[in-house]
Amino acid sequence: MKRRQFVGGLAAAASVAACTGEGPECESGAAQSSEMFEWSCVTSWPPKYPGLGIAVNNLAERVEAASDGRLKIKVYGGGELVPAFEAFDAVSRGTVEMGHDASYYHKGKIAAAQFFTAIPFGMNAAELNGWFYYGGGIELWRELYAPFDIVPFPCGNTGVQMGGWFNREINSAKDLEGLKMRIPGLGGEVIRRAGATPVTLPGSEIFTSLQTGAIDATEWVGPYNDVAFGLHKAAKYYYYPGWQEPGAGLELMVNSEAWASLPPELQALVELAAQAITTDMLAEYTHGNALALQQLKDNPDIEVRPFPDDVLRVLKGHTQDIVDEQSASDPAWKKIAESYYAFMNKSTDNQMATEVAFLNTRAL
Amino acid sequence: MKRRQFVGGLAAAASVAACTGEGPECESGAAQSSEMFEWSCVTSWPPKYPGLGIAVNNLAERVEAASDGRLKIKVYGGGELVPAFEAFDAVSRGTVEMGHDASYYHKGKIAAAQFFTAIPFGMNAAELNGWFYYGGGIELWRELYAPFDIVPFPCGNTGVQMGGWFNREINSAKDLEGLKMRIPGLGGEVIRRAGATPVTLPGSEIFTSLQTGAIDATEWVGPYNDVAFGLHKAAKYYYYPGWQEPGAGLELMVNSEAWASLPPELQALVELAAQAITTDMLAEYTHGNALALQQLKDNPDIEVRPFPDDVLRVLKGHTQDIVDEQSASDPAWKKIAESYYAFMNKSTDNQMATEVAFLNTRAL
Repeated sequence: MKRRQFVGGLAAAASVAACTGEGPECESGAAQSSEMFEWSCVTSWPPKYPGLGIAVNNLAERVEAASDGRLKIKVYGGGELVPAFEAFDAVSRGTVEMGHDASYYHKGKIAAAQFFTAIPFGMNAAELNGWFYYGGGIELWRELYAPFDIVPFPCGNTGVQMGGWFNREINSAKDLEGLKMRIPGLGGEVIRRAGATPVTLPGSEIFTSLQTGAIDATEWVGPYNDVAFGLHKAAKYYYYPGWQEPGAGLELMVNSEAWASLPPELQALVELAAQAITTDMLAEYTHGNALALQQLKDNPDIEVRPFPDDVLRVLKGHTQDIVDEQSASDPAWKKIAESYYAFMNKSTDNQMATEVAFLNTRAL
Repeated sequence: MKRRQFVGGLAAAASVAACTGEGPECESGAAQSSEMFEWSCVTSWPPKYPGLGIAVNNLAERVEAASDGRLKIKVYGGGELVPAFEAFDAVSRGTVEMGHDASYYHKGKIAAAQFFTAIPFGMNAAELNGWFYYGGGIELWRELYAPFDIVPFPCGNTGVQMGGWFNREINSAKDLEGLKMRIPGLGGEVIRRAGATPVTLPGSEIFTSLQTGAIDATEWVGPYNDVAFGLHKAAKYYYYPGWQEPGAGLELMVNSEAWASLPPELQALVELAAQAITTDMLAEYTHGNALALQQLKDNPDIEVRPFPDDVLRVLKGHTQDIVDEQSASDPAWKKIAESYYAFMNKSTDNQMATEVAFLNTRAL
């Protein structure tokens, strides 16, 4: 695998005959617009993983096509170039120009990054985009990542996820006590406070752990990804809704120097492509989840169930506590949380009067 | 106002030095990629109208930026170049290369076009996109428009709209009898069957007609557009949900010859831009509606109310009848309806388990 080394300095791979930034050939607009770029994009997904992984491959192909080959992006699955979950560091250091993953993977470094993927009981996909593009969310995100030399872009959303697979019934909050569940991030801390034991497992170990009883439950994404993963063969109860991830937004990260090296037309193209992929990924999930959930409902070995309100109320209470505690000690978190919840609180009435009231007519 | 005449034949405005389709200058890739296009886009919106109109201006600006000026699109408000609602004919005839409006405006010509904007009690924005991009919807749409020499693209969505403004309470289906309401399209036919009188009015006459009592009710879009229009000053009751438009998808229309004349990279760019605008417009509405609905709820002169289930049930029954009757006499309608409802019916369980079940936790 041959690729250009990108070690700080000039970020763009100039084509043989193109302007390199200072020569006289840069004086011609025509020469400028023939400048070529070959970028690498690392991800935390298995290569071409449905939804998450396909989306970034689509982004790369469509940017290459729309730039007439001027911006080529080679996409790497997790572990192919850098380990999964190390995309942030690779982009920050300039080892690669671009990365695609979920901002909450960086919570160890920047707790507030979680707001840009999903917060338990937080915003759904439509609201998150409303906040990102019209409520100041992207500006807060860029400010948060600037010290790491990363320019982030929203790029994809899974929609509201499912609550997960359980090998026992959850009839009250008491049933969470002692439960060993694979659930990362803030959701994990929430169930810990509810008496359960959150565990983190690589994707490859989830199925076996659930099947052997090493864990009692796991959340993953939604029917489209979960069925492909075989989770319905390892547990009986499939609970909803995904209180822990109500519309997980994915991120495209671009190294700041690499970004600055792109001419304005290719910057505009990357922004368009990232925003297009948000529509496209949510469409893929909306379609794929619909079909996969029907399969599960037709499967006599599976029970698809709502969490009892009592359970959701307890989980919501713990979430609120955690958000408030973090605000007390983390100014970046506090600033972002204030903007996030200010919009979400204003948005709820509209979501209930439109999406919820409308979808409820399906049962009439 | 100077613009190139586009009267069939070669659709692209080639720049002075560029390839014109057959000369020897076309043999060089470099010459090919400097070809320039100046297009006109007619719309049915007031110029820069919030949401609907801003979106197409954004599309034009972003395509010009991302193409480095190779594809310039001049956007015209309704009536500026051709009358509002005549965008379809102008694009079909090749008078202009591009148009932006809603496919249900063409129902007089092609009844089935309505499926691609909104059908009463039909799909929401997420489902419509799932069907468009992953369920074969776009292919059906292109087939429907091919005889008119138009290539359509989804380009924007308002989300679920509101049911409208009423100057009297609607407590049962009986209260619809004799009601004079501005409501176009299939929704109008539905309320006609419920005993009301649907009327069509230009946007400019709605406010006065409602205020003077010439009409008893009107639907428009949602709080973001309705408040800007002043409708809250002309009626007291604001009903939800917008059963008549549960996620109105807008369309970008490109004349087939103009489309074929674009080099592949500009075609890829237009497709990216249209899909990006779908995210962007829905974000604008999600944000704007949230804020405007709060204003209305804080206004003591306004009552924001849900339609009673009884009313929605009657309207849904009439909708089903109309859809079935049209299927019996219109093969194009039948073919599209079968695909549309096949996906929608599979999707409902997933929407209820995710969006609805999740948003219901806001009240816990």
